Order: sequence, then C-alpha cells, then structure tokens
Amino acid sequence: GVIDPVKLDRLAEVAIKVGLQLQPGQDLVLTSSIAALPLTRRIVEQAYKAGAGLVTPIFSDDEITLARFRYGSDASFDRAAGWLHEGMARAYAQNAARLAVRGDNPSLLSGQDPAKVARANKANSTAYQPALEKITGFDINWTILAYPEVEWARQVFPGVSDEVAVGKLAEAIFAASRVDNDDPVAAWREHNAALAKRTEWLNGHRFHSLHFTGPGTDLTLGLADGHEWMGGASTAKNGVTCNPNIPTEEVFTTPHRLRVSGHVSSTKPLSYQGTLIDDISVRFEEGRIVEATASKGADVLNKVLDTDEGARRLGEVALVPHSSPISKSGILFYNTLFDENASCHIALGQCYSKCFVGGDKLTPDEVAAKGGNKSLIHIDWMIGSDKVDIDGVHEDGRRVPVMRAGEWA
Amino acid sequence: GVIDPVKLDRLAEVAIKVGLQLQPGQDLVLTSSIAALPLTRRIVEQAYKAGAGLVTPIFSDDEITLARFRYGSDASFDRAAGWLHEGMARAYAQNAARLAVRGDNPSLLSGQDPAKVARANKANSTAYQPALEKITGFDINWTILAYPEVEWARQVFPGVSDEVAVGKLAEAIFAASRVDNDDPVAAWREHNAALAKRTEWLNGHRFHSLHFTGPGTDLTLGLADGHEWMGGASTAKNGVTCNPNIPTEEVFTTPHRLRVSGHVSSTKPLSYQGTLIDDISVRFEEGRIVEATASKGADVLNKVLDTDEGARRLGEVALVPHSSPISKSGILFYNTLFDENASCHIALGQCYSKCFVGGDKLTPDEVAAKGGNKSLIHIDWMIGSDKVDIDGVHEDGRRVPVMRAGEWA
Ligand SMILES: [Zn+2]
Ligand SMILES: [Zn+2]
Ligand SMILES: [Zn+2]
Ligand SMILES: [Zn+2]
Repeated sequence: GVIDPVKLDRLAEVAIKVGLQLQPGQDLVLTSSIAALPLTRRIVEQAYKAGAGLVTPIFSDDEITLARFRYGSDASFDRAAGWLHEGMARAYAQNAARLAVRGDNPSLLSGQDPAKVARANKANSTAYQPALEKITGFDINWTILAYPEVEWARQVFPGVSDEVAVGKLAEAIFAASRVDNDDPVAAWREHNAALAKRTEWLNGHRFHSLHFTGPGTDLTLGLADGHEWMGGASTAKNGVTCNPNIPTEEVFTTPHRLRVSGHVSSTKPLSYQGTLIDDISVRFEEGRIVEATASKGADVLNKVLDTDEGARRLGEVALVPHSSPISKSGILFYNTLFDENASCHIALGQCYSKCFVGGDKLTPDEVAAKGGNKSLIHIDWMIGSDKVDIDGVHEDGRRVPVMRAGEWA
Repeated sequence: GVIDPVKLDRLAEVAIKVGLQLQPGQDLVLTSSIAALPLTRRIVEQAYKAGAGLVTPIFSDDEITLARFRYGSDASFDRAAGWLHEGMARAYAQNAARLAVRGDNPSLLSGQDPAKVARANKANSTAYQPALEKITGFDINWTILAYPEVEWARQVFPGVSDEVAVGKLAEAIFAASRVDNDDPVAAWREHNAALAKRTEWLNGHRFHSLHFTGPGTDLTLGLADGHEWMGGASTAKNGVTCNPNIPTEEVFTTPHRLRVSGHVSSTKPLSYQGTLIDDISVRFEEGRIVEATASKGADVLNKVLDTDEGARRLGEVALVPHSSPISKSGILFYNTLFDENASCHIALGQCYSKCFVGGDKLTPDEVAAKGGNKSLIHIDWMIGSDKVDIDGVHEDGRRVPVMRAGEWA
C-alpha cells in the first residue's frame, strides 16, 4: 500500500495512549467509515492491548449514505436513528470512552438537494443531542483523528493519481498528528506543555472581549464571564486526561452569547456533513447573526442557522498562529479537524461547559447565566489568516495586542 | 467479480419484498459483516426504493472480533454492548424491521480458548435478550439471508481457488434462495403455498408427540399443548407477512419443554458463533439434556448447555425432507441457515411463542404453562437424514407415519 504501516500503527497508538488515555477495563465506542478500516482495526488492537473492556465499532459507508438521497422517499429525510444515539449516550453515562475516525469525502452530498440535506442534518442533530451533551460537557475522555480516504485525498491533491494523492494526504496527517518521529508520545507531551503556556497567559489576562480586524472582518467578540482558556491535553469529568483532537494546535474558550457585534469573513472553505460552504460572511448584533452570505453552500448555511435559537450564536473562539505546522504545510484539507488547526476560528452553536473556571461543576443554567451558548449544533469555521490582528480588551477599555498579522504578539 | 451482479440484485430485492415485505415509512435495522458490503449496499438501495424510513446498518468485522481474543484482557470476555442491544430492542418496539446478512467464517474462533468464547457468547446472549424476545415473539417483520464471504466459501469448497469457491457458494446461495430465475417473487409465492399445505396437514393431526428413530437416535419428542406448525411466510404481530429465513424449507413447531425423552445424534456439524461442533449426541430425561457429547467443540457445547436452565431443553422441532433442494445439492454449508433447511432439526433454548394457536396474544406465563421453553439461547442443530423415520403419536397411542427414510410418508 501507499500508506506507511509503521506510521499508521503509531497513529493508532497515539489515538489510544494520547488521544484517549484509555483506562484498563474501560469500554470504547468507536465510529469510523468502512473505508478507514485499516486504521480502525489497528486502533481496536491498541485498545485491547491497553486493557480495554469491550470495543464497539459503529461503521458508516458513503454509498449507503448516498443511497438515501438517491432513492429515499421524502419522509425519510426527517428520520434519525434515535435508538442508536440514545444508546451511545447511555454508554457514555456508563463511562465508555469515545473515538471518531474521520476521513469522509468533504463534498459527498454536494450534488444533493440542500433542503433534504438540511432536514437530514437537523433530524440527526436532534437525535444526537443526548450523546453530544456528554461529549461537549466532557463527561468522558474522547478523541477524533483522521484516516486518508481516497475521495478526500482526491480533493486535497487534485490532478495526481489516487495512489499519489492518498500517499501525500497520509504523510500530511502523520506529520500534523506528530507520528512522523520515533517517540510520538513524548512529542505530544512537549506539545501539550507548549499549549499550556499559552492558556496560562490568556487566563492571566482574562480579557472582557477580543477585537478581530482584517479583510472583511471587524468583530468585537465578548468572552463569557469566568471563561477559561483551554488547549491540548485536558481532564474529563471522569478524571481521565485526554487530547480530544489529533491534531490540535488551538487554544480556545467560550464567547459570551449576547456580546458579539460586527462582521467577520471566513478565510477557508468549510466542509459541513458533505457540503462545501465557501466565502462565508456574517454580521452579528448583540451576539446574534442577523445576516449571512456565502458564495457556495449558502442554502445549507442558512438552514443550519435556523436549526435553533443557539445556532445563530457563538459557542467557541479559538486562536491558532498562522505559522502553525498545519498552516505552514500550505495544504487546504477541506476537513475541519485540520483546517481549524491552521487558523483562528469560531464555532456556531453549543459551547463547552468545561471552558469555564470550575466548569465541571456548573449546571446548564449556570453556564447560560455566564453567557455560555446552547444549541443542537457545534460547527467550527475559519476566520484567521496572516492579515488578521487581534487585541484583547479589558473591561476598562485597556487593549493588549494578542496577535499581529496572524502571529502571537 | 465472480458473483453474478444480476442475481445479487435479485437477492436484495427478495430480501426486501419477500423476506421483509418492508412497509413504506418503516425503519430498518440491518446487521451485516463488512465483507458482505456488496449485498448490503444493494439491500439498502432496495429498502429505500420500497419507501423505507431510515435504514441503519450495524457492521461487524472478523478481524475486530478476533482482536479481542488475541489481545483482550481477561475481564473483557464478560462484557457486552448492552447499550446497543437495548437500543435495537427499542427500535423494534417502535416497529423497525430487522434484517441480518450472514456469511461469517464458520470456524473463526475455533483456535481460541473455549472458556473465553463461551463467556463472550454468554455475555452477548444476556445483553441481546431484550432484542431477541421481540424477534422470537415475532413483534416485527424480520429476515435472515446470506452472502458468500470468502472465508466461508473456502471451508465449503476446499481445494479450489478463492475465486472458484466464492463463485460456487454464490450460485448455491442463489439457487437455495430461489433467485436463479426471472421472477423470484413469484417463485417464493408458489413455495410458500407448498409449505402451507404441509403445516395444514400437521395442524389437522395436532400430534401429542413425535417419535424419531435412526442411527444413534430413539427420541420421543412431546409437542407443546396447543402448538401450531408454521412454515414459509408468516404474519408478525405488526401485521406484516414476511419470510424470516431465506432460504427456508422447514415446517416447525414448539416441543413441550418437560416431555422429551431418549437419545438423539446430530447428522451434520453445527457452526455456533465461530466454533464447529460435530457428532453431537445427547440424552433427554423429562425434557432435560442430562448427558451431552461431541467429537469436536464439546467444551463449547457443554458451556452453552450451562447458559441457563432453558438451554438444556428444546424450543423448536422442524421437519425438512431429505429431498429438499438444499439437501439434494449435496453441499455441507457449515451454516445453520442452510444446513437446517437440508435436514430435520431441533433447537436448544427459546421457543417461538408464535408457534401456538393464538400465539400472538399469549403472555410469557401462558406460553410456559403450555410447555413453551424460555432461554437466552436458540441454537438449531441437525438430526435428520435419509435413515431417519418419524411417527406422529396421538394422545391415545395411535401412530401415523410422518416421514420414512427422510421423506414425507
Ligand atoms: Zn476549536
Ligand atoms: Zn469547535
Ligand atoms: Zn428451524
Ligand atoms: Zn431455529
């Protein structure tokens, strides 16, 4: 094969030892596409070697996903597998860890009726809510990582053979995931320490708001009361320290859902559940998106914003320097796991309750009172580039440079 | 490929139109191994064309199953995915149909520790119980059919290339499943009518017991009070008429769990969850197996019998003439779905409450009072051959020949 089996083994090891720190006896619920089977099998092996209880993989298949859009009756698009999502939520409530392997075709559903895509997404988000709450609430250790599926590789590296494209994407994933060296676990330890220094500095300042300026962007983004910056390794409520994203370059916290104003433009395309959304531009008033445009996928974007009241408000802001390794690779991945780690970004929808001082003890009502947002969705999109400046603004108006031309100031 | 795509499409069509008679708007829960993907994708397509609500496939993978036995810690073998099985039970309670694609390696686990295999099976059976009850209770329309996976084909046709073996097994499956002609739906209609004639004759007699004699066999098998013979198409409690097995040649009913005595020997090997069990011989006293031997897989057999009290008693007896098309093919399939349809068989464990007059209205207590058995397991094994005679015995001792030398008398 064109994918280095040694690095693939290392990626599986990093998934279990760094991504999850899976505990002896702990069950694992794993989602993967069938196309990612070579990595998924290795992850299962590593999980059992680490003393897993039971590993339960739930597989998806692009052709089966498409069959619904090609042949499904109209009523089908409002259905969701509530029994499966509720079951997963119950597994997490019983302390199962959660791992997702991503590698799907970023534009799988681009040729399908946007109204049906939006209905299917909404039905799925609604059914998924009980499980998502346990993940965003950080009840258990979880992680997401990627496998270079061929349809994805074709879009990242067009104009070369499938073999070459998959090989290149595999190497890009390995480099970004820090498995292109002999001791990836040690490399992750160092990286987590570096991210911790950034969060300490930001938590020392505890800014009232951030002010973003750049082409098409002049945004004042209030931060939630008692917000806490996080990044890299983090401890879930079940006491396990994990790395929820592999790769990760971001430090992130919770915006105030009522205190965001101005306008902001995306700097990279967003692939959302098989639809590419490009050149997003939105305007906020009192925390709420009152206007949204996009050059591609505008239909799906506007339907997403109508999911619920919280879908028009922010649940996350994240800072990533333009010189991050993923950004320096120059590769546009059309995959949020990578592109969000090459650029400052914001997320529509649900906040992470963990991004508050003492967050693991806050009730949903307390999170809301501090300005945390609530929604069925959590969709990151990229607003950073080497042309964006960010100031931290204290409550008394004092400004501190945070980033200049996309780099830490 | 070596598998005829036209017949594979027809098999998918038969699965949805004959096996399930899937209703417009009805959801479908589908289990399949990843190796059976070519058939499973076609089934999903046919399901949506028939107006399915949502089709949710749950995939298994032999390598992942094996990883647990190769690398799992001891404690892993008592775990099961309760959340998943309970979820399926909830889906059936909400009227989802159920389809299983079988084609697994019949001796996948033959090299593994029988004690661990038995523990894993028991944990899984226990977790699966809520879902199995809805299937054996015939709450919803369900069906099982097969795909010629390569590991299975190798064992059925040893000594030829994988391509040849898979091609031969595919054709055998197509013939047995009645898709080797241009109108398989009509062929199934005729076949169902022929099976209905047999059940009418048997239900007209309503024997008190059956008496099996043959090499290693002298068995008096009492039938449950108010038992009903079934076979072919059958109507589930949700009102949908389906064919639960494709292929099917059997007519079957419920033995009395306290009135079985004598001894009986298997006539074909049994593949039970990856373990081959051969040359089974058991002795019954008052309905209970008090002695069991096997030349292969005796460890697993005896552990299965210890699953619970009902595991040593019978839940089904089925009659199949030795001249059935599957039997005449002369192929030993090492797969119960086929081998049970080439031979009279009995099943350890759970009975079908539907196999009683007015069975869909009986409570579990009423089923038990009539002699129906209850267990976590339902395992069919083959006791018929061209050397076995069967008499029907009325309560007054009057005997009626039912089969002679394996054929209807
Ligand atoms: Zn983020
Ligand atoms: Zn995010
Ligand atoms: Zn049977
Ligand atoms: Zn049976």
